[in-house]
Amino acid sequence: MQFKFRIATKVFFGEGCLNKNKSEIAGFGKKCMIVTGRSSGKKSGALDDMTKALEELSIDYIIYDKIENNPSLENVADAGKIAREEKVDFIAGIGGGSPLDASKAVAVLAVNDIQPVELFNNAFDNRPLPIIAIPTTAGTGSEVTPYSILTRNDIKNKMSFGNDDIFPAVAFLDARYTESLPYSVTVDTAIDALSHAVEGYTNKRSTIMSDIFAVEAISVFGECLDNLLTNKIDYRIREKLLYMAMLGGMVISHTGTTIVHGLGYPLTYYKGIPHGRANGMLMAEYLKFNYEAIKDKADNILRLLRVGSLDEFGKIMKKLVNTELSLSEDEITLFASTGAKHRSVAQNPRDIAVSDMVSILKNVFKVW
Amino acid sequence: MQFKFRIATKVFFGEGCLNKNKSEIAGFGKKCMIVTGRSSGKKSGALDDMTKALEELSIDYIIYDKIENNPSLENVADAGKIAREEKVDFIAGIGGGSPLDASKAVAVLAVNDIQPVELFNNAFDNRPLPIIAIPTTAGTGSEVTPYSILTRNDIKNKMSFGNDDIFPAVAFLDARYTESLPYSVTVDTAIDALSHAVEGYTNKRSTIMSDIFAVEAISVFGECLDNLLTNKIDYRIREKLLYMAMLGGMVISHTGTTIVHGLGYPLTYYKGIPHGRANGMLMAEYLKFNYEAIKDKADNILRLLRVGSLDEFGKIMKKLVNTELSLSEDEITLFASTGAKHRSVAQNPRDIAVSDMVSILKNVFKVW
Repeated sequence: MQFKFRIATKVFFGEGCLNKNKSEIAGFGKKCMIVTGRSSGKKSGALDDMTKALEELSIDYIIYDKIENNPSLENVADAGKIAREEKVDFIAGIGGGSPLDASKAVAVLAVNDIQPVELFNNAFDNRPLPIIAIPTTAGTGSEVTPYSILTRNDIKNKMSFGNDDIFPAVAFLDARYTESLPYSVTVDTAIDALSHAVEGYTNKRSTIMSDIFAVEAISVFGECLDNLLTNKIDYRIREKLLYMAMLGGMVISHTGTTIVHGLGYPLTYYKGIPHGRANGMLMAEYLKFNYEAIKDKADNILRLLRVGSLDEFGKIMKKLVNTELSLSEDEITLFASTGAKHRSVAQNPRDIAVSDMVSILKNVFKVW
Repeated sequence: MQFKFRIATKVFFGEGCLNKNKSEIAGFGKKCMIVTGRSSGKKSGALDDMTKALEELSIDYIIYDKIENNPSLENVADAGKIAREEKVDFIAGIGGGSPLDASKAVAVLAVNDIQPVELFNNAFDNRPLPIIAIPTTAGTGSEVTPYSILTRNDIKNKMSFGNDDIFPAVAFLDARYTESLPYSVTVDTAIDALSHAVEGYTNKRSTIMSDIFAVEAISVFGECLDNLLTNKIDYRIREKLLYMAMLGGMVISHTGTTIVHGLGYPLTYYKGIPHGRANGMLMAEYLKFNYEAIKDKADNILRLLRVGSLDEFGKIMKKLVNTELSLSEDEITLFASTGAKHRSVAQNPRDIAVSDMVSILKNVFKVW
């Protein structure tokens, strides 16, 4: 038995948890930079709660609300420059995966005047600023991971950086912040979270500890599945989804992801498919391709989800993502070769070649 | 749903994990104080591994090897004074619960010149030194908790202090260090770990997250039960026990303990019963007393342990602890009133009075 266990984040979960535990913020300094998207912070109510808490604690703050969907290096560099100039003491990321991941990059850039591409070196002269993470989706799990996924326009793909220093120091998880999400975003992000659990559970870096979180996450997704399919998503279900997404983050903090993410990134970059939805399209084929190598775990996933077979699982995912996509032969070649460069290839349960990636993509998508 | 989740410790688990990950120690400073008992560090091999690692890293160290079983305030004050005078940068606790808990007190006292009784204020002017924890028993779980249990001779009882700052920064869990333990210590400490899981799982502060760890720990204890009963404890079982003990620590980090610990402390203080054994004597009666309030969980504990009934569980514990103890009426009165002062009383699944504690003790022990 051999494992490393590390979740550096202190998590507060529950309705009103930010206000109830705002004293946790007090020690981080005198000036905060809130990093968020154009609307998620406001619509969710999380931005108001956070600014109110900061005001009550007499902490100054500035708001950077220009984080894009799938934030680019240019985007985080812009925010990082302002954080440096404004000499903020800590960062509060509010939003879905994009603002949360961006906040991690900003925490580094605020105290390291480096080119944004140097983020991918994963080692910095100065320790990143403390990060507070407040998710407004139940998917990314970024609030409890040491990863930040950024879009590199120079290589036309998404890429992650990270080390233990960018674990958020504190995370506030309040399902009320996810109540304003449209159905499609709720489903896409829930699938992203499931994907984290499934990819972590089945990949070669899984450990006895990460499996505990994965099994719990998959089981909780199973409890929510009917509600997701029928769009009966009340507060109780939203809490379960937020809990599951956090668990998924705890899983991949230890295992990383797999080619589901590796093949999903080009689908997002080139075809604009939302990240979780891209994973959902690929997950069943990933499990089928690897089935013999992970039979016990794959069967356990189906049992936990209360789904009869991988084919049925594929149908359910298709129903949830509800997207038809056709790819050209050239696109398939490009996406497969992009996927083959993803570092998770080495963690795949069985050896996987570019030709296998082509097959997976052709099994999922229409080819024209 | 409402919970806090916090395990600040970075855990490395597995054979040779200290040597493989010694770079983790490098950042803590130039001088280390190793806090250990008279023999556990040496016999286990952990002390040699640690001093070798420190030498390879060119880190100075001093060794304080006078930690008592059930360390007193006087004992940790002595070590703390030396740590202050020697201006050490970090503390390495090596041993069972006694040295690990002592190392936490020393980490505080090294940078806070306070009376040892002030430890129980749980707030300190200066942040405790970083702690590295290397358990040589599989029981306490102290390597992943923010608690330190010390013996107060002034009130003739054990008492705990703690806050998030005394979570060990890093823990190295290598089951080889537990191989030299005699059978009785292996069993007593394993029961302590089970007790943490059972008490955390059933007490009022249990959360959805702490339950994940508790269920896994109880299940792993169940896998080891036959081996514990028949003294067939090979390396594979020792790894499971060490893993289970860590999980037990993660549980009580979130829940605290119960009156099993509250009533167990006077048995240790006055009668010299080893801590885990004291818990083992009391656990079945605790579950019986609370059964109606925790029926589902109690039944699940029996299912996970593959034990048919609470009576059978009591018999198994009795066989494991293998101790006959008679108490006088006066002792029972004293122990019950001591237990009633334990802060876990408020967390008991159902209301519990001193008279109930008397009944529990009388059900367990012969009275003369």
